[in-house]
Amino acid sequence: MLISNILKHVRLTPEEQALFSTFWTPKTLEKGDYLLRNGAICRTDNYVVSGALKAFYINAETGATEILYFAIEGWWATDIESFRNQQPSIYDIQALKKTTLLQIDHRSFQKLLAAIPVLERYFRIILEGYTAALQRRIVFNNAHTARQRYADFLATYPEFPGRIPQYLIASYLGISAEFLSRIRRKNNSR
Amino acid sequence: MLISNILKHVRLTPEEQALFSTFWTPKTLEKGDYLLRNGAICRTDNYVVSGALKAFYINAETGATEILYFAIEGWWATDIESFRNQQPSIYDIQALKKTTLLQIDHRSFQKLLAAIPVLERYFRIILEGYTAALQRRIVFNNAHTARQRYADFLATYPEFPGRIPQYLIASYLGISAEFLSRIRRKNNSR
Repeated sequence: MLISNILKHVRLTPEEQALFSTFWTPKTLEKGDYLLRNGAICRTDNYVVSGALKAFYINAETGATEILYFAIEGWWATDIESFRNQQPSIYDIQALKKTTLLQIDHRSFQKLLAAIPVLERYFRIILEGYTAALQRRIVFNNAHTARQRYADFLATYPEFPGRIPQYLIASYLGISAEFLSRIRRKNNSR
Repeated sequence: MLISNILKHVRLTPEEQALFSTFWTPKTLEKGDYLLRNGAICRTDNYVVSGALKAFYINAETGATEILYFAIEGWWATDIESFRNQQPSIYDIQALKKTTLLQIDHRSFQKLLAAIPVLERYFRIILEGYTAALQRRIVFNNAHTARQRYADFLATYPEFPGRIPQYLIASYLGISAEFLSRIRRKNNSR
């Protein structure tokens, strides 16, 4: 539940909790459906209730693709940059399986923050955690071996293997699916 | 000025502005001084008044080094993860030239947010912008060529060349200084 996620970080009165819930609209995606296409504006902030999505970038010139993140229940699946500026996104976000979201559009998001200002604190705290993870990914990507990066990945996202196909995890880590299989076999044989 | 940076994003009353300024302590670093060493706790949030710093990660096993960010005046030079959790940092932050900072310790930072809650909004907005830049760096690092990455860098940080030594920009981009020189010569000859 989104509200219980929020109450982990900030306090809301029962009235604020009731008001909060009126701002969100459920949305269901089937496997393969796009939540966002590059070039379009990310109109909504999206909280994942169930399912899984991947956000990725495609180099229009070369076709090279890079996975930005996976999102499963309890995560946000939004292009923050496009959403905050209401300008076209450079990312695609696609459902990996049937997925249920809670959505809020940009104007309602501003109204929500004005109505319940303590949510500014919640989103600051959430962003600090995400920033920390992004920073680690940047430095580990070049300074760590593939084996270390997989260990980092497991430590940061223990819930992902089994929820996200292995070939996508390999792609996220910048290694081949075969190489990831080899690392996993070696880990298991220890 | 830090306060004018903040007033770009949120409104503070004159009383809040006066209170705000009492929370910050100036600090000067000489070229080469470390603001933070890996293994130590990042005790303060640091706003750069003048000068330049680099934050970087060293792989203790291999010695491989990766630059996380450069910070010049108007930027923050903090390990957000270590500061928020008050746990040892994995990063080093070092002054590239004589640098002046405004600092606030972790306990005072919490008091400041409690005293002037609208600052939660300021830090949320700042973090959104930083998150967007980190995300672009991640996807561009693998999906873009070195030439594109340098163009991305110039577009994102037009103020950095001339302020940050070229060999460090090359390191940040994951290319050799020679290759960066070649890209720059080609750009200039167009």
